[in-house]
Amino acid sequence: MKDFEFYNPVKIFFGKDQVPQIASQIPAGNKVMLIYGGGSIYKNGVYDKVKEALKEFNVTDFGGIEPNPKYETAMKAVEIVKEKKIDFLLAVGGGSVIDATKFIAAAACFENGDPWKILKDSEVVKSALPLGAVLTLPATGSEMNKNSVISRKSTSEKFSFASPYSFPRFSVLLPDAAGSLPPNQVANGVVDAFVHVIEQYLTYPVDAPIQDRFAEAILITLIEEGPKVYSNPSDYNSMANLMWSATMALNGLIQAGVPGDWSIHSIGHELTALHGIDHARTLAVTLPGLWKVLREEKKLKLLQYGQRVWNITTGTEDERVDAAINKTTEFFESLGIKTHLSDYGVKQDTIDKIVSRFKERNWLELGDRGLTTPEVTKKALEYQL
Amino acid sequence: MKDFEFYNPVKIFFGKDQVPQIASQIPAGNKVMLIYGGGSIYKNGVYDKVKEALKEFNVTDFGGIEPNPKYETAMKAVEIVKEKKIDFLLAVGGGSVIDATKFIAAAACFENGDPWKILKDSEVVKSALPLGAVLTLPATGSEMNKNSVISRKSTSEKFSFASPYSFPRFSVLLPDAAGSLPPNQVANGVVDAFVHVIEQYLTYPVDAPIQDRFAEAILITLIEEGPKVYSNPSDYNSMANLMWSATMALNGLIQAGVPGDWSIHSIGHELTALHGIDHARTLAVTLPGLWKVLREEKKLKLLQYGQRVWNITTGTEDERVDAAINKTTEFFESLGIKTHLSDYGVKQDTIDKIVSRFKERNWLELGDRGLTTPEVTKKALEYQL
Repeated sequence: MKDFEFYNPVKIFFGKDQVPQIASQIPAGNKVMLIYGGGSIYKNGVYDKVKEALKEFNVTDFGGIEPNPKYETAMKAVEIVKEKKIDFLLAVGGGSVIDATKFIAAAACFENGDPWKILKDSEVVKSALPLGAVLTLPATGSEMNKNSVISRKSTSEKFSFASPYSFPRFSVLLPDAAGSLPPNQVANGVVDAFVHVIEQYLTYPVDAPIQDRFAEAILITLIEEGPKVYSNPSDYNSMANLMWSATMALNGLIQAGVPGDWSIHSIGHELTALHGIDHARTLAVTLPGLWKVLREEKKLKLLQYGQRVWNITTGTEDERVDAAINKTTEFFESLGIKTHLSDYGVKQDTIDKIVSRFKERNWLELGDRGLTTPEVTKKALEYQL
Repeated sequence: MKDFEFYNPVKIFFGKDQVPQIASQIPAGNKVMLIYGGGSIYKNGVYDKVKEALKEFNVTDFGGIEPNPKYETAMKAVEIVKEKKIDFLLAVGGGSVIDATKFIAAAACFENGDPWKILKDSEVVKSALPLGAVLTLPATGSEMNKNSVISRKSTSEKFSFASPYSFPRFSVLLPDAAGSLPPNQVANGVVDAFVHVIEQYLTYPVDAPIQDRFAEAILITLIEEGPKVYSNPSDYNSMANLMWSATMALNGLIQAGVPGDWSIHSIGHELTALHGIDHARTLAVTLPGLWKVLREEKKLKLLQYGQRVWNITTGTEDERVDAAINKTTEFFESLGIKTHLSDYGVKQDTIDKIVSRFKERNWLELGDRGLTTPEVTKKALEYQL
């Protein structure tokens, strides 16, 4: 395996009745901003539980974080944070709320002009407010990592940043709160977690059997549990397994010591930025296209994936690669996640736009071994027209 | 799965040429105690590398930590720590050195009389000196957990403690340094890690597929890599895989949300305390005996283990359980690890002594569902006479 560093100090509280734990995790006397989304936390009862847990604290609410959280909205929160001298940020909701909270925490302490530079120019985050999270939607893994993805409405751009200051101090994971999610959001979460694993696994072999088997363990579990949760989000056990799978999919563990790709995400982010398509759905479109173009370069891992995850053991190598790609596409489609651009009304002009953006940014060799050139991106998306 | 808390803030540096990292991980100006064992770190070159990395620090050496580290030796270090006002402890070696360092760190700050009480009476550790580790021997997982096991020579006792203050701040994992180990120590490491996984896996099903598959991933990897490293410890890739397996086997991850057992360890510790047998070998003796006694209670997990880890798919349930136990024993023996008490000159009187000790301590229902009564312990060891 490759040399690596691994560090993940997030304290996890997982299961039923875990919300009261937050009171002991936030320093007494802190002024807290409670950050949330469109209000689902009122319906699932989590808002009341959090307020009860924080009754000894001075709490300022900030709701309205969007899916694909917006820079513009986050900056409004930053203003209030500064004005009220907030000490601690508590994200309550899904990955979008947690990502926004990480950006707000960093932006509130940014001293080098417009915090957009953290995203657009990768300016280093040198400090951030401490934050915690209460997770009600399994998907992004943001609850146990240092990553954040933010969109800017005014420019239709979407960028990510990562900083050790952005780890939540703690995250409370609530499978029962996720039980009231609509099935399409559950499906998004399954596919999002699935592709997170793929980005860290489907590259080339480096003799790292623990990392490979952990990745395969998560994929197999998502394939088993995904359909159960999709048909019945209130199945607690399956939702718990999905939630822990999604957390493990992107907490740095399966990435330690192996090459990554992440070009599926780079391409998918453009589809979201330009057309507002759900993140997971952009990944479901991009993944099969990219595999079709890079099937030779990724063949060894595609064969291993086919065998260990889908039990594909017969046929020529080419047939097994085809079967692995088809099985994956069928899995996404079985969860109601469409895998063609036409399903989302996206046409050739968008492909051309993405390719020209990548060239403008000098993104000429993305992902695994730099294989994802603008030409590869073009072909990959054209496969999925 | 069960509700759980998970927290592991240890920063890992893994691979080649990682020693220089330690200089940036210890606060400048700290007085450092460098703690090590019998001197293997002189031979494998790690001592010189560590000294070079710490050249800006005031360093006090403390060598001579034994395998199954002794309370008596650790207390000598505590005296020097206090006298010299040491700020930071750096363990360099295997699990014994790290365990001793954790105890020294806690004992140096213990204000309630004899620190032996931390071990014998489970007195809570309220503070400890910060510590780091440089690992040269894959086995115990101590480099990434908060546990420590210490023996007292004068009373032939062996106890463990665990405290959040005992996590190393960082651990540097050096597969190449382990390349000069004698094969019998490599074999001990493989079996130790294997049984660590078993203690957290071989209980009863709780619908926790991620945890189960991660555990199985480690077991399968140990079965694959163990013989390679045993026959050639200087095979870097295999040693790296063994080292990461051993770390993952006991860093809290596979224990999160599932029941544990740990009675194999409780029994094994007595065999070490009374006869000085290597820790891993006591586990290799105890495990098959305990499974033979509790084969009905543990049947569902034994069948799953047999199928997924050893590919045992034919025969009656009883035959498959037998095959799973036999395969495990054969694996230990293939690494030169004997699995009968007679192999170590231990007889019935020791079994009786252990059973009477457990009764004296009121250890009447150890492990998985409290199944390991003194009577079960007696039968388990008698199976292995």
